[in-house]
Amino acid sequence: MIKIKAIDLRSDTVTLPTNEMRAAMASAPVGDDVYGEDPTVRELEKKAAALMGKESALFVPSGTMGNQIAVLVHTKRGEEVILDSEAHIYYYEAGGPALLAGVQLNPVKGLLTPQGPEILKETLKPEDIHFPKTSLVCLENTFNRGGGTVLAPATMEELYGICHRQDLKVHLDGARIFNAAISLNINVKELTCCCDSVMFCLSKGLSAPVGSLLAGTSEFIDAARKYRKILGGGMRQAGVLAAAGLIALQSVDRLKEDHANALRLATGLSSIPGISIDLQRVQTNIIVVKVEGKISASVLVDKLSVQHIKCATFGPGIIRMVTHKDVSSQDIDFVISTTKDLLN
Amino acid sequence: MIKIKAIDLRSDTVTLPTNEMRAAMASAPVGDDVYGEDPTVRELEKKAAALMGKESALFVPSGTMGNQIAVLVHTKRGEEVILDSEAHIYYYEAGGPALLAGVQLNPVKGLLTPQGPEILKETLKPEDIHFPKTSLVCLENTFNRGGGTVLAPATMEELYGICHRQDLKVHLDGARIFNAAISLNINVKELTCCCDSVMFCLSKGLSAPVGSLLAGTSEFIDAARKYRKILGGGMRQAGVLAAAGLIALQSVDRLKEDHANALRLATGLSSIPGISIDLQRVQTNIIVVKVEGKISASVLVDKLSVQHIKCATFGPGIIRMVTHKDVSSQDIDFVISTTKDLLN
Amino acid sequence: MIKIKAIDLRSDTVTLPTNEMRAAMASAPVGDDVYGEDPTVRELEKKAAALMGKESALFVPSGTMGNQIAVLVHTKRGEEVILDSEAHIYYYEAGGPALLAGVQLNPVKGLLTPQGPEILKETLKPEDIHFPKTSLVCLENTFNRGGGTVLAPATMEELYGICHRQDLKVHLDGARIFNAAISLNINVKELTCCCDSVMFCLSKGLSAPVGSLLAGTSEFIDAARKYRKILGGGMRQAGVLAAAGLIALQSVDRLKEDHANALRLATGLSSIPGISIDLQRVQTNIIVVKVEGKISASVLVDKLSVQHIKCATFGPGIIRMVTHKDVSSQDIDFVISTTKDLLN
Amino acid sequence: MIKIKAIDLRSDTVTLPTNEMRAAMASAPVGDDVYGEDPTVRELEKKAAALMGKESALFVPSGTMGNQIAVLVHTKRGEEVILDSEAHIYYYEAGGPALLAGVQLNPVKGLLTPQGPEILKETLKPEDIHFPKTSLVCLENTFNRGGGTVLAPATMEELYGICHRQDLKVHLDGARIFNAAISLNINVKELTCCCDSVMFCLSKGLSAPVGSLLAGTSEFIDAARKYRKILGGGMRQAGVLAAAGLIALQSVDRLKEDHANALRLATGLSSIPGISIDLQRVQTNIIVVKVEGKISASVLVDKLSVQHIKCATFGPGIIRMVTHKDVSSQDIDFVISTTKDLLN
Repeated sequence: MIKIKAIDLRSDTVTLPTNEMRAAMASAPVGDDVYGEDPTVRELEKKAAALMGKESALFVPSGTMGNQIAVLVHTKRGEEVILDSEAHIYYYEAGGPALLAGVQLNPVKGLLTPQGPEILKETLKPEDIHFPKTSLVCLENTFNRGGGTVLAPATMEELYGICHRQDLKVHLDGARIFNAAISLNINVKELTCCCDSVMFCLSKGLSAPVGSLLAGTSEFIDAARKYRKILGGGMRQAGVLAAAGLIALQSVDRLKEDHANALRLATGLSSIPGISIDLQRVQTNIIVVKVEGKISASVLVDKLSVQHIKCATFGPGIIRMVTHKDVSSQDIDFVISTTKDLLN
Repeated sequence: MIKIKAIDLRSDTVTLPTNEMRAAMASAPVGDDVYGEDPTVRELEKKAAALMGKESALFVPSGTMGNQIAVLVHTKRGEEVILDSEAHIYYYEAGGPALLAGVQLNPVKGLLTPQGPEILKETLKPEDIHFPKTSLVCLENTFNRGGGTVLAPATMEELYGICHRQDLKVHLDGARIFNAAISLNINVKELTCCCDSVMFCLSKGLSAPVGSLLAGTSEFIDAARKYRKILGGGMRQAGVLAAAGLIALQSVDRLKEDHANALRLATGLSSIPGISIDLQRVQTNIIVVKVEGKISASVLVDKLSVQHIKCATFGPGIIRMVTHKDVSSQDIDFVISTTKDLLN
Repeated sequence: MIKIKAIDLRSDTVTLPTNEMRAAMASAPVGDDVYGEDPTVRELEKKAAALMGKESALFVPSGTMGNQIAVLVHTKRGEEVILDSEAHIYYYEAGGPALLAGVQLNPVKGLLTPQGPEILKETLKPEDIHFPKTSLVCLENTFNRGGGTVLAPATMEELYGICHRQDLKVHLDGARIFNAAISLNINVKELTCCCDSVMFCLSKGLSAPVGSLLAGTSEFIDAARKYRKILGGGMRQAGVLAAAGLIALQSVDRLKEDHANALRLATGLSSIPGISIDLQRVQTNIIVVKVEGKISASVLVDKLSVQHIKCATFGPGIIRMVTHKDVSSQDIDFVISTTKDLLN
Repeated sequence: MIKIKAIDLRSDTVTLPTNEMRAAMASAPVGDDVYGEDPTVRELEKKAAALMGKESALFVPSGTMGNQIAVLVHTKRGEEVILDSEAHIYYYEAGGPALLAGVQLNPVKGLLTPQGPEILKETLKPEDIHFPKTSLVCLENTFNRGGGTVLAPATMEELYGICHRQDLKVHLDGARIFNAAISLNINVKELTCCCDSVMFCLSKGLSAPVGSLLAGTSEFIDAARKYRKILGGGMRQAGVLAAAGLIALQSVDRLKEDHANALRLATGLSSIPGISIDLQRVQTNIIVVKVEGKISASVLVDKLSVQHIKCATFGPGIIRMVTHKDVSSQDIDFVISTTKDLLN
């Protein structure tokens, strides 16, 4: 079947669970997690908190829910949240912060770059009856729409310091935080120490079927648990999912392969006339491909699709490709050669 | 271990998945459901829609999310929703309708009784600039806080007719709708035909680990899908959960056993001095026990707990007990005899 | 003209400003109140705070805005507010608390009666992840839909004590608080000491054209000022309105006449066959008239209207009549005799 | 007194009502506007609708309320509103759109320039489950933070055409729309024909004490009236304010003097070393002054204040000055000479 053979570079969310995960799901001890009685969920939450260097953690059905809950807990209605103008929370969460938390977003260009701290300082405004009170800054690492770029610990520390001095909370959208840590070759805690709360996903590069974790202080997680209930994220025998998540956390090192494949793909594609890629920005498993040749980005996407290679446009003239567990280095080579053929 | 041996009558949400469900989860074909590509989720949604007699259905992580999404789709901010003063949406969903949908609830006593239609007519108000516009009526069948009571098709039809004539939508919280249908010995569609949308749970008496379905017109489900995304209920390889759900739907007939056990439990307990139960209201798998003897309801709960029988108070002087797959008729007899001993 | 001659008993909101008020408006020193520079507004706010026994006060364009701001300041989104099931905030403010504050209302029958404290105690629930957190109780004195009834200081004190011990805030909708104080023949502070914030209206019995005051701690008023800005209640040279308000505050004693007229009207009407009035509930300037005779309440309203007497139904079979500055005792006698004629 | 003598250039909101306005307020026929019975309000609303070329209009206590109501009527919760990144609704309304309407703002740089139409086209995104649906574009003319600049009818028409073809509504924040019309020497309808709703203020250059008008279709205004009630903007004998507003509308031509004064001020100041002003952007009654000399903008503001000249910073190194009725050409000359002295 075509579906099975396709090389799917649209996102690392398409990764399928491993056999080991499926076996774990089939045998996991479970209970009613709304009563706090699912031992597998509890184990996962404990492990996640430890990994992130936080007091407590909460299992949620999606990264979006984790982010939205963080915004809900850290803010009061009518306040303002500063984030990058291309941040996932602003760009891809369908207006959730306004609808759910009643907060206004202040999207700022360049926040997730080395110039971020300077830009943040210029963005902060004095108190004034005409302005919403700023209460939260959201960071994102790796930065999806930036092309999977990594924010260095020093930059994060500086950003966190500015926020701390202004009594602003910092939430880290760490959907791919392990990609950042692996890329930097550091312990993930060197990044997560620079935030008040962090969300990371089990279902992207780590390839679990469903779920994300939100971590922070115990007080934060208590409040988060209540909001999870309100949003309908309280699940019953969620241990079946958590079991896969526990396996996923053992595969963090495997992300290196995805990064190597991304670089291989980027290098190969960038040698093709009509394609340009900023190789310096290929830092993890995402590559941003500019198509400037005879055919447009969307036509190229269509032509690749016919060859069972799936990817998607990411703006005018731009394609995003994401490497992951279910894409091998042979697949990468096939993508490169196919693209070359299509553009000649 | 104590946990395994406990007789847990707190809720049918504590049911554990069957081995068959676990096997199905381990082998289900899955895909990225946010892209609409999980075949098992699609099969479950199609089956659910057919069972409910609706055009389309949507898999959600909890009944609460299903209900909240229904409220979001059927209303605009600032409107009013009429429901029973003991309805789950009003009583147990932590204020979600105000927070998420910005709607005011109008809780009405007796809506879910045979007098409901009369009461509803008296509740409806004319348009006035001082009043929120009423746009939705929420029903619940079986009625949890009513004691698992069943609303007859004739009553539902009358309620639906009133609403229809006033251009009000009707959402049915059918978390236990199959208990109602089994109790009435009718096809569930005879109940779900009297609403614009219905939510039912896989994770209560049907004993799947996680998940509920929301069903309605295709247009309704399209809007629901968007709200599910905003709330963070969009899951990736959700087919692992849906696989269990498909098995769950094959076990609807088994609910009869729960009903028989509930009646056996109610009859047994009601013969104990100090306990009174309205047997006419024991219509499905929930029994409401009034404790009027020497010891209070909460003390009785504690004493039963020591004997590894779990249940919970349900108001002052009242205990709720719920029968389900993991409670056998022997368990029931043990609960009766233990209670008898404790109260003598 | 008919308009001038009509006896308008629909509400005390219809009172026209006095000549003295108009003269004050024409000569008041004003400034930009958004900058805090309107001396007349400042004087009124200072005077209002002193009258209420509170640290600070804020001028708002309507009682509804004052109440809504109080709900906004005292609560966080997702919380619960307890109030009487016939309270103005629940009944007549068009769903504002859900839309603006994102809070769920818990309407309770009998809260504003001598049994209120007992009822409140039974209503309070323990903390539970399924319940919204209760953070505010709203009282109303006089109680409009109760028929202008007065809540005694002892009852208010008891209610306030219960709330205080549970860390609940109390807001008093005192739209007609001076009517209550006059009726009880006490200083209004004996009532307003039993709340954390109070709103009262200048534009009802006190007959100013526009405006209400919200009073509380300085911290409360600072937060209220911000919400007033968000709601669009920040007005520029509002001193022209405040000037009338200052005059209005000198006319508090005049409310006695309205009360006397209401009693005269109630006594007169209650002697007419087909009309019944609970005279014990005629405590201020509102009377609730039950029409049980040959013609219905709405027909009577229409027939009175032809005689240039305006009033409105207040529920099935019920008419509300409100006395005020622009209704004289001769008018009252005319209403009584006209009604008598119409019902014979 | 200092207050009387001060030259207040902070805003045209500080204008005091004229004697004619005060006289009108003192004698205006009024009624209860919540019942729709205030003849003066009705006259003002009718006149405003006619002036704007719209079916109907609504009197509101502030421009902020008018704008917020427009956002509420034109959108559903969870949708997106596109506006300029310096628009009043985004910058100065304290986060209202998220809190009240639950909508996400998409602030776009350059929308209110001749390039606006191109920029708007690039901003519009296709429908996608990850994106909020765009439903409204807000324009602003004159553009306050742009320096009182005027958007030409041709540009507005182009913007409106794009929106119309995409089924987007257009709201015009026309707080100073008459300044725009006067500057362009056209009938204001040539601007207001390019929007679905428009708000304009009586209390800025037109110098009425309080109030703004919102205009649109009758259906729009009906919905707006309901939201006004919810926000607490329903006022009783509002005719006292409307009377001043009717006078204000007779003084539209006087705005020419403010524009002449602004140009005189800008020309004078720009000749002072250390000050730079883009004279091409001085199109109405607002001038934006860059201070680049020895002393900073905020120090200059302080020094001017000692000389009884009030103005305010408008960003780092920038001062805004606004001319209006209560600033004469002699005052302008005094400001110029004083500034010259201070900077030498």
